[in-house]
Amino acid sequence: MEKYHRNERIGAIVKILTENPNKIFTLNYFAEMFNAAKSTVSEDIVIAKKMMDKFSFGIIETLSGAAGGVKYIPIFSEDKSKELVHDLCTRLSSTDRIIPGGFLYMTDIIYSPDIVSVIGRILATHFMDAGADYVLTIETKGIPIALMTAKYLNIPLVIVRSGSKVTEGSTVSINYVSGSTKRIQTMSLSRRAVKRGTKSIFIDDFMKAGGTATGIMELMKEFENEVLGIGVLMESKEPEIKMVDNYISLLTLDGVDEENNIVKIEPSSTFL
Amino acid sequence: MEKYHRNERIGAIVKILTENPNKIFTLNYFAEMFNAAKSTVSEDIVIAKKMMDKFSFGIIETLSGAAGGVKYIPIFSEDKSKELVHDLCTRLSSTDRIIPGGFLYMTDIIYSPDIVSVIGRILATHFMDAGADYVLTIETKGIPIALMTAKYLNIPLVIVRSGSKVTEGSTVSINYVSGSTKRIQTMSLSRRAVKRGTKSIFIDDFMKAGGTATGIMELMKEFENEVLGIGVLMESKEPEIKMVDNYISLLTLDGVDEENNIVKIEPSSTFL
Repeated sequence: MEKYHRNERIGAIVKILTENPNKIFTLNYFAEMFNAAKSTVSEDIVIAKKMMDKFSFGIIETLSGAAGGVKYIPIFSEDKSKELVHDLCTRLSSTDRIIPGGFLYMTDIIYSPDIVSVIGRILATHFMDAGADYVLTIETKGIPIALMTAKYLNIPLVIVRSGSKVTEGSTVSINYVSGSTKRIQTMSLSRRAVKRGTKSIFIDDFMKAGGTATGIMELMKEFENEVLGIGVLMESKEPEIKMVDNYISLLTLDGVDEENNIVKIEPSSTFL
Repeated sequence: MEKYHRNERIGAIVKILTENPNKIFTLNYFAEMFNAAKSTVSEDIVIAKKMMDKFSFGIIETLSGAAGGVKYIPIFSEDKSKELVHDLCTRLSSTDRIIPGGFLYMTDIIYSPDIVSVIGRILATHFMDAGADYVLTIETKGIPIALMTAKYLNIPLVIVRSGSKVTEGSTVSINYVSGSTKRIQTMSLSRRAVKRGTKSIFIDDFMKAGGTATGIMELMKEFENEVLGIGVLMESKEPEIKMVDNYISLLTLDGVDEENNIVKIEPSSTFL
């Protein structure tokens, strides 16, 4: 049977842990893979752990006991999160993003695999210890960010639909009033999608008054699911009083001034 | 300045390359990061490359010349792809997925971050050398798979919408006839989303007759964008003659027999 050098074992451990954040791997898993003693793998992991620390790549955590093993926690440092949010702020503030009507073109950013990985990881860092069982989002634009958040937390993504689709079986639907447009809308979710007695976080691209988030919280009551918190890429400065309070945003939009060609965005208070 | 051991440098290189598939990093980038000579980094990369080979993790490719550097190509071996498709087949064939009306509940699978990573990587492996500039999808259920495909290919994701949304500026819309339901539907895309003279692949969760794919190809003509190929998680066996031919599917659905409680799915010919 092939033996591997320490270099190679460490490389392989880092590869597997990086691709599977928050997933526990036993020492036996690696020992069998490398045809090596568990004590050898333990030493490899100590080196990998120190490396991760030195480069601020996140944390490799060792869990003892019956469910023991090792997992990778992909948290960003506070400084790193702030730096990345400031970068995003600069990119989104570009005046060529202004769309007639005073809107901001953001879809290239919020669909870019690279950028949504970063946004998802910042949000996952914030909710790492919340104990959520699901990441919820509502179609369409928040899906990429929510998926990456779920990937880093290693929990399932649940997409709430507008309107009920036949291919998802029996659904629960609610009507809600969008806080900003005051229009009545419908959202629905398959009964199978969420187990009763669970917890979740709600992730979206944008929040104005918080009507959608309120709707989600109403809907989740029907599933006996507790929404622990809300994370959005961007909130609007107005209205200052939102319909929800347990939320975090990365950026705050103070408005798009079409006439004078100015986009006013700043990092939200947590990331200033 | 801190120096790092070879172990640590290799771990860090593997970490960065794994997180950024198909992105080129110069030797200088690593040399500066490690405060090490380029020749040292070169040796590290040779070791990392061999490790990736031994474990079939994909390929580390070294590019010479002015645009030189190193990148990670996350391809699966043919055997690995087949094994994973067979696993998926088993999971999706579970009879408790049958929904009244003869539908199959799949959203837990096609929204699971772990599973869509695998599906996206299989599709990315297939389209690795196609030379696409974008991954296209249409809302909603194909988005997670398409995002992960785009992530592994390191190209932008473009989401075509049903109906035109004001926040995306001027849009191009087309009407198309869904091949299976024969209903007229609308799809639209912001003019800003795709540059002229580019190429793309279209990724979706399911294909019946191929009406949606045909619609996408029509729409992309308006952007002078060539759709190089189509990748779907699942196709239906009927109709056998689809409206498009340049597609690949992972699985083929031969029907859901509600009465006898049987789900007939098999790996598509490429993955048998």
